[in-house]
Amino acid sequence: MVVELFRPSVQHVLDLVGIFVFAISGALLAVRKNFDVFGMAVLAEVTALGGGLFRDLVIGAVPPAAFTDLASFVTPFVATALVFFLHPQVERIQAGVYVFDAAGLGLFCVTGTTKAYEYGLGLTASAALGTATAVGGGVLRDVLANEVPSLLRWDRDLYAVPAIAGAATTALCVRFGAFGALTGTLAALFAFLLRLFAMRYHWRAPRAWHRRSEATEEA
Amino acid sequence: MVVELFRPSVQHVLDLVGIFVFAISGALLAVRKNFDVFGMAVLAEVTALGGGLFRDLVIGAVPPAAFTDLASFVTPFVATALVFFLHPQVERIQAGVYVFDAAGLGLFCVTGTTKAYEYGLGLTASAALGTATAVGGGVLRDVLANEVPSLLRWDRDLYAVPAIAGAATTALCVRFGAFGALTGTLAALFAFLLRLFAMRYHWRAPRAWHRRSEATEEA
Amino acid sequence: MVVELFRPSVQHVLDLVGIFVFAISGALLAVRKNFDVFGMAVLAEVTALGGGLFRDLVIGAVPPAAFTDLASFVTPFVATALVFFLHPQVERIQAGVYVFDAAGLGLFCVTGTTKAYEYGLGLTASAALGTATAVGGGVLRDVLANEVPSLLRWDRDLYAVPAIAGAATTALCVRFGAFGALTGTLAALFAFLLRLFAMRYHWRAPRAWHRRSEATEEA
Repeated sequence: MVVELFRPSVQHVLDLVGIFVFAISGALLAVRKNFDVFGMAVLAEVTALGGGLFRDLVIGAVPPAAFTDLASFVTPFVATALVFFLHPQVERIQAGVYVFDAAGLGLFCVTGTTKAYEYGLGLTASAALGTATAVGGGVLRDVLANEVPSLLRWDRDLYAVPAIAGAATTALCVRFGAFGALTGTLAALFAFLLRLFAMRYHWRAPRAWHRRSEATEEA
Repeated sequence: MVVELFRPSVQHVLDLVGIFVFAISGALLAVRKNFDVFGMAVLAEVTALGGGLFRDLVIGAVPPAAFTDLASFVTPFVATALVFFLHPQVERIQAGVYVFDAAGLGLFCVTGTTKAYEYGLGLTASAALGTATAVGGGVLRDVLANEVPSLLRWDRDLYAVPAIAGAATTALCVRFGAFGALTGTLAALFAFLLRLFAMRYHWRAPRAWHRRSEATEEA
Repeated sequence: MVVELFRPSVQHVLDLVGIFVFAISGALLAVRKNFDVFGMAVLAEVTALGGGLFRDLVIGAVPPAAFTDLASFVTPFVATALVFFLHPQVERIQAGVYVFDAAGLGLFCVTGTTKAYEYGLGLTASAALGTATAVGGGVLRDVLANEVPSLLRWDRDLYAVPAIAGAATTALCVRFGAFGALTGTLAALFAFLLRLFAMRYHWRAPRAWHRRSEATEEA
C-alpha cells in the first residue's frame, strides 16, 4: 500500500458501502427496463463490481477482488433484494441514492488510483485507471441494459469530471509525498462534493463547438 | 485438475459440441440481424468462446484456451458455414438447436466451475464464474448485436437459473469431496434438464414486487 | 521481438499515427451522437486503444501498453480537441480520415499479429488476435455509442477482410522465416490498399444464402 487510507476494516466497510449504492443504481435501472429478478442481480453485480474488475484485469491483479472477497460479491444481492421488495420506496428516496452514489464515486476514484499506483502504473495512468474504476461499472450497466451510457450524454449532469478531479488530486498528493488518510479523505470529499454540486446546479459539459445550434433542435 | 470429468479426449469432444451449438445460436442471430458472413463469423466466435475467455482472463489463465486450442477456434467457422448455406433448415430445427444449447449450458457451467476452482478461487466465486462461463457468451452476443441480453429479460424462459443450479451443485460436490465423473455428469444433466423444463413449461422469473401490474400494460 | 518492423522510434511514431486517426473516428462518432466533450474523449480513447488493450489482456502483457505509454494515452485527447473545435472541417475531410483509418488498420493488424506471436501464441491465433487488435477498437466504439458495430453490418464496405488479409500475410511470413521490415511493410500496405479498394468500389460481403431476397426489402 502507498498508505492505508483508513484502517483496513474501515476501508472495507467504506468499499462495501460504495458497492452497495452502485448495486442499488443497477437494480433500479433493471426495474425500469422491466428485467426479471436475475436481470436485476446481474445488473447490480456488474454496476457494483465492474469498475474494480476492469482495474484489476488491467493491472494484472488476478483473480480480481470481485471474485476473492465474498462480502463484495454478496452485497449486490442484498441491494437486489431490497429493490425487489421495496422499489417504489427506493425510487422515492432516489435523491438519497444519488448522494450515496456520489459517495461511492468519490471513494472509488481515490482507492482505484492508489491501487493502480501500487501495481506500478505511472501517475497519469493511475489517475486514468482510478477514474475508470469509479465510472466503469455505470458504463457496463448501461451497455448491458442497451442504453447510451449516461456518462457520455451531454444532457446529464457532470459525472466524469468529479471522478477525474478526485483521481487527479490523489495522484498529485502521491506525487508530492503528501498522500495519507487526511489528504485521501479530502480528495474523496472533493469528488463527492463536486458531484453533488453538479447535480444541484445541473452543471454540464459542452458539446463540440459548432454543434450547438443544430443540437438544440435535435435533442 | 480437481478430477478429470471424463477422459480428456471425451471432455474435449464435449467442449467442442458445446462450442458448436453456441456458435450456431450466434450465427443465427447474425442472420436475423441481417449481418454479412463476417458478422456471422464474429458473432459465432464471440458466442462460443466469450464465456470461456472471460473466465480465463479473470483467473489469469493467459493466453486463454480460446486462443491456444485450434479446434475451439475453428469450430465456430464450421457452424458459420453451415448456417450460411442452410439457415432456413437450421431455423426449422430451432428446437433441436435449443436442446444442444441447453447441453452446452449444462456442460460449461460444470467445467467453468471446476476450472475456476483449480485456479484457486473460493467455492462461491467458482460457482459464480462457472455460471458466467455458461451464460457470458450469449450476453456478449446480444450486446454486440445491439439487443437487450435475453438473459436479463423477464419475457424469456429461465436461462440463468439452470446454470446457477449446475454450478452450485458442482461446487457443493467439490466441497464435500464427492466430485467425480458421475456427480459431474449428474450436475451437468441437472442443469440441462432444468433448462429443457424451463423451455417446455415457460418457467419465468418474477420481476420486482410492485412492478407487476404496470408491467403487463407496458410489455 | 520477432523482428523490429522499423526502428523503434519510427514504429512508435507510426503507432501514434494509427492511434490518432482511430481517435478521430471515435470523436467524430461522439459528435454525431451528440455526446459532450467528455463523451468525445472517452470514445476517442476507447477507439484508439481498445483493440490493443484487448490484445494485451489476452496475451497477459499487463499493464497494457495503453496504460504504460504516456504518448498513446495523450494522443486521443489531441484528436478530441481537434474535433471539438474543428469538426465541420474534419467532417469535410472525412475521405482523408478514412485513408488514415485504413493506414491504422493496416499497421495494427501487422503489429498486433507479431506481438501476439512474441508472447507465444500459435500462428493462427496470432493472426486472429492481430485482426482483433485492428478492428477491436471500432467495435468497442460502436458498442459504447449503442450502435450495431459497423464491422458486422452487410451494408458497409469490407473492413474485416483487409485486416484478416494483412494479419494472415504477416503470419505466413513469420511461418516461412521471411518476416522483416520489407515484408512487414508489404503486409501492412496490402491490408491498407485492400481497404482503400473496398471503399472505392464498395466491396461488400455476402449475407446468408437464402437471405438475399427478403433482405433487400428489409434493408
